[in-house]
Amino acid sequence: MAGDDAKKSKPKGNASGGGKKKEVKKETGLGLSYKKEENFGEWYSEVVVNAEMIEYYDISGCYILRPWTMAIWEIMQAFFDAEIKKMKIKNCYFPLFVSPGVLEKEKDHIEGFAPEVAWVTKSGKSDLEVPIAIRPTSETVMYPYYSKWIRGHRDLPLKLNQWCNVVRWEFSNPTPFIRSREFLWQEGHTAFATKPEADEEVLQILELYRCIYEEFLAVPIIKGKKSEMEKFAGGLYTTSVEAFIPNTGRGIQGATSHCLGQNFAKMFEINYENEKGEKSMVWQNSWAYSTRTIGVMVMVHGDDKGLVLPPKVASVQVIVIPVPYKDADTKGIFDACAATVESLCGAGIRAEADFRDNYSPGWKYSHWEVKGVPLRIEIGPKDLANNQASNLFSFLHLSHFPLVRAVRRDNGAKIDISRVNLVEELKDLIDNIQQSLFDAAKQRRDSCIQVVNTWDEFREALNQRKLILAPWCDEEEVEQDVKARTKGEIGAAKTLCSPFDQPELPEGTKCFASEKPAVKWTYWGRSY
Amino acid sequence: MAGDDAKKSKPKGNASGGGKKKEVKKETGLGLSYKKEENFGEWYSEVVVNAEMIEYYDISGCYILRPWTMAIWEIMQAFFDAEIKKMKIKNCYFPLFVSPGVLEKEKDHIEGFAPEVAWVTKSGKSDLEVPIAIRPTSETVMYPYYSKWIRGHRDLPLKLNQWCNVVRWEFSNPTPFIRSREFLWQEGHTAFATKPEADEEVLQILELYRCIYEEFLAVPIIKGKKSEMEKFAGGLYTTSVEAFIPNTGRGIQGATSHCLGQNFAKMFEINYENEKGEKSMVWQNSWAYSTRTIGVMVMVHGDDKGLVLPPKVASVQVIVIPVPYKDADTKGIFDACAATVESLCGAGIRAEADFRDNYSPGWKYSHWEVKGVPLRIEIGPKDLANNQASNLFSFLHLSHFPLVRAVRRDNGAKIDISRVNLVEELKDLIDNIQQSLFDAAKQRRDSCIQVVNTWDEFREALNQRKLILAPWCDEEEVEQDVKARTKGEIGAAKTLCSPFDQPELPEGTKCFASEKPAVKWTYWGRSY
Repeated sequence: MAGDDAKKSKPKGNASGGGKKKEVKKETGLGLSYKKEENFGEWYSEVVVNAEMIEYYDISGCYILRPWTMAIWEIMQAFFDAEIKKMKIKNCYFPLFVSPGVLEKEKDHIEGFAPEVAWVTKSGKSDLEVPIAIRPTSETVMYPYYSKWIRGHRDLPLKLNQWCNVVRWEFSNPTPFIRSREFLWQEGHTAFATKPEADEEVLQILELYRCIYEEFLAVPIIKGKKSEMEKFAGGLYTTSVEAFIPNTGRGIQGATSHCLGQNFAKMFEINYENEKGEKSMVWQNSWAYSTRTIGVMVMVHGDDKGLVLPPKVASVQVIVIPVPYKDADTKGIFDACAATVESLCGAGIRAEADFRDNYSPGWKYSHWEVKGVPLRIEIGPKDLANNQASNLFSFLHLSHFPLVRAVRRDNGAKIDISRVNLVEELKDLIDNIQQSLFDAAKQRRDSCIQVVNTWDEFREALNQRKLILAPWCDEEEVEQDVKARTKGEIGAAKTLCSPFDQPELPEGTKCFASEKPAVKWTYWGRSY
Repeated sequence: MAGDDAKKSKPKGNASGGGKKKEVKKETGLGLSYKKEENFGEWYSEVVVNAEMIEYYDISGCYILRPWTMAIWEIMQAFFDAEIKKMKIKNCYFPLFVSPGVLEKEKDHIEGFAPEVAWVTKSGKSDLEVPIAIRPTSETVMYPYYSKWIRGHRDLPLKLNQWCNVVRWEFSNPTPFIRSREFLWQEGHTAFATKPEADEEVLQILELYRCIYEEFLAVPIIKGKKSEMEKFAGGLYTTSVEAFIPNTGRGIQGATSHCLGQNFAKMFEINYENEKGEKSMVWQNSWAYSTRTIGVMVMVHGDDKGLVLPPKVASVQVIVIPVPYKDADTKGIFDACAATVESLCGAGIRAEADFRDNYSPGWKYSHWEVKGVPLRIEIGPKDLANNQASNLFSFLHLSHFPLVRAVRRDNGAKIDISRVNLVEELKDLIDNIQQSLFDAAKQRRDSCIQVVNTWDEFREALNQRKLILAPWCDEEEVEQDVKARTKGEIGAAKTLCSPFDQPELPEGTKCFASEKPAVKWTYWGRSY
């Protein structure tokens, strides 16, 4: 039953955990004090705290992931883990610590991560002989062992994944889920004999990431390839799923699937004897998604009442709330609630009842709205009356059960459902909510896409916080130049990705920025 | 299919990963170079490496957990996680990092961990303002927030668990699984209104730990209570499951379930308003099991051929090996193997076939023996001949299928099974192996138990590396004294636990060490 960890209602201290820069001011009551349209940053902090997803921690940039968050993470993890196991990818666990020599072996790679690496230099009161790094990612942790394990072509492919924490000691604007100093993720690391095999896997994994965003989190994404500037440090090419936050007009990299080519193989000497007995080098991929996914979901679906959870990732899909009145038979109502929960759970719907006797129904409505539960069911004496049966037992009997009031979190719609069809109708409703959330998010996202062809159009669209699709010459110095020319208080524009789904590029189209011949359409914008 | 990560057969370097103290000397071929009876320490290192469970890492005391290990961990995790969810315990994730002020709040507690704490003092090239600790356990990480979240009696019980890594920078004798600087575990942290509720949960969790050891890992354990000296630092009392390694004559703490009492509640001000409106303090528990479980299993069941896996935790329960000969129809044999695997998997048995064409059947037998797979099935032309059918298709047909040769890993027994009953018979065999492993381990363990009544008997039993059960006065200074009097090269004796299952203690029985009146039977021995 609900309420076991519902402690937020009466916070002891301030909601930010003390000593945090981003203090969340809380008014009495359950409503949010900030509006999504008016003050997005404060609204976001308030939602993740009040929905009991996050607790701010006394070390800046670190956050406590509460059960309401972990349930979402575990649902996605169960899906992804099963899918990669079908692909014969196996789980492993490599150490948290990296020795400096190994960490610094791949120069481009370490340049990308060095400023953010946390170093352990002491144990107890003693200094370590050599400082030891905490993994920001595990390429350099793992690949010396790939070199050892891979000898002949029969050792390939080698396909490993791990679920773990990583640490990137960033100083810029920590944000729960989106940018935190420690986060949870999976990281896959695979090695193949040939490039086509690696290329194929990059896209298979990217498709799984699309599923997580679009089918689980109901967040529309764009699949595409990163520019040379934005690709993974040390890799060959990076593909990603890119989401967009209309309220801030910022793109956000959702997850990445990299083909590392043979660069790490060269550095770490990952060679094998091919079928002809010749020494060859492997082709490698690495790919990851993190708890950032959850933050994107909050930003995309949340509203002024709080979190809005897509049913597929909601640990509680239906909350059943008894609505007793003075003269009504409370036990009868409670029994009806319990029976409803039981029948829903039996049908595979994640349902709970909120039987707490120290809160009013109205308080409970708000509470579960803040927490984003997709559907609320209210059961009270009105339903009994509807039934025109004074006998409680008939109330509990299926054939005599009255209409039940269901309320959708996503659009507030109230629906009266006959108890006879309750399970079936709720299942349809749940599917419908999942689809509606995606459709609405896609509509909002699409309305932000602006196709531009010239620099002036680009500047204007950027000022309007659009997701900009522009013809580009694909030259690194041009991207550099665009970055420099758009540098301002709220951040420079950069490429998000070149979508795999390319609109037609008419012969003679020029790059919006350099006026050189354009070679592809690319999404541009500010980003997280 | 098997073999995707079977890289161990031709190691590039030495098996210890380079630069390790405990170097595992490998001879050519698959056999182990050390015997369990003769050189237990080296035997153990060799088993965990050659079975592809562990790879030694270039930082001492850190180990790579390979897929063969992670599969075992995931099976136990699925069981335990489902069980605690039934108890309404919810998963969360607290940060890896602890600030010094919080870490040091509970004096007894931190005294127990301080020498092993790893400190982060730098990020990139900058010194941190304040050094930050890496969690050795999470009491002090979590409880400030318990204080915040718990306000009234309705907020109780609060029951959280997390699956995570922890770091204890130990310097004494690192051993894979058993004593490593980073390890994986679950840690549960619960708070109750009353002591009886806390007491009850301590034992419920301990029973789950017994299940993991006895029913999954087939390792017999003793449930009991730790002495005051050996209990968890800062807690009220500690219960544990204690295993024993006959070869070394050492006890090993398998998992612990602590009642913390109200000590942490006092330090962290975890108060609530009770039903009468009075301020009360919560009662707390914490409990954990780690990847150490896997090491205990290896030590208890392994033999001179390598690892021996109990079927319940084996990711491959049955390995099917084709045995082709020159004149035989290889394709027919391979098809029969594939069909066998399919029917076993369909029946819920975890089966794979080893179709690699560059290894002989004999090599494969050894390979899967080292890896500890509980059952091997051989399918070859002999089986065809038995069938007296020259037509291959009839070979595949159930009713014409010959006897199949099955070989047990635990005792080497060879059993010919009719194909008609294959699934049923294998299921029985798997159950039988699981039970046999437990029975054999229990017999070996029990034969090491020595009841003693006097100091002289105690000394002798200790010299014989027994698991000693002795009447004890339960005084801390006596345990201290026993420790001092038995200090030697291979370690002092200490209490392991006072078993819940107490033999009768006749009136007037004296403590074996102090000759004061004994109050309980207690297990003593050297330990890991």
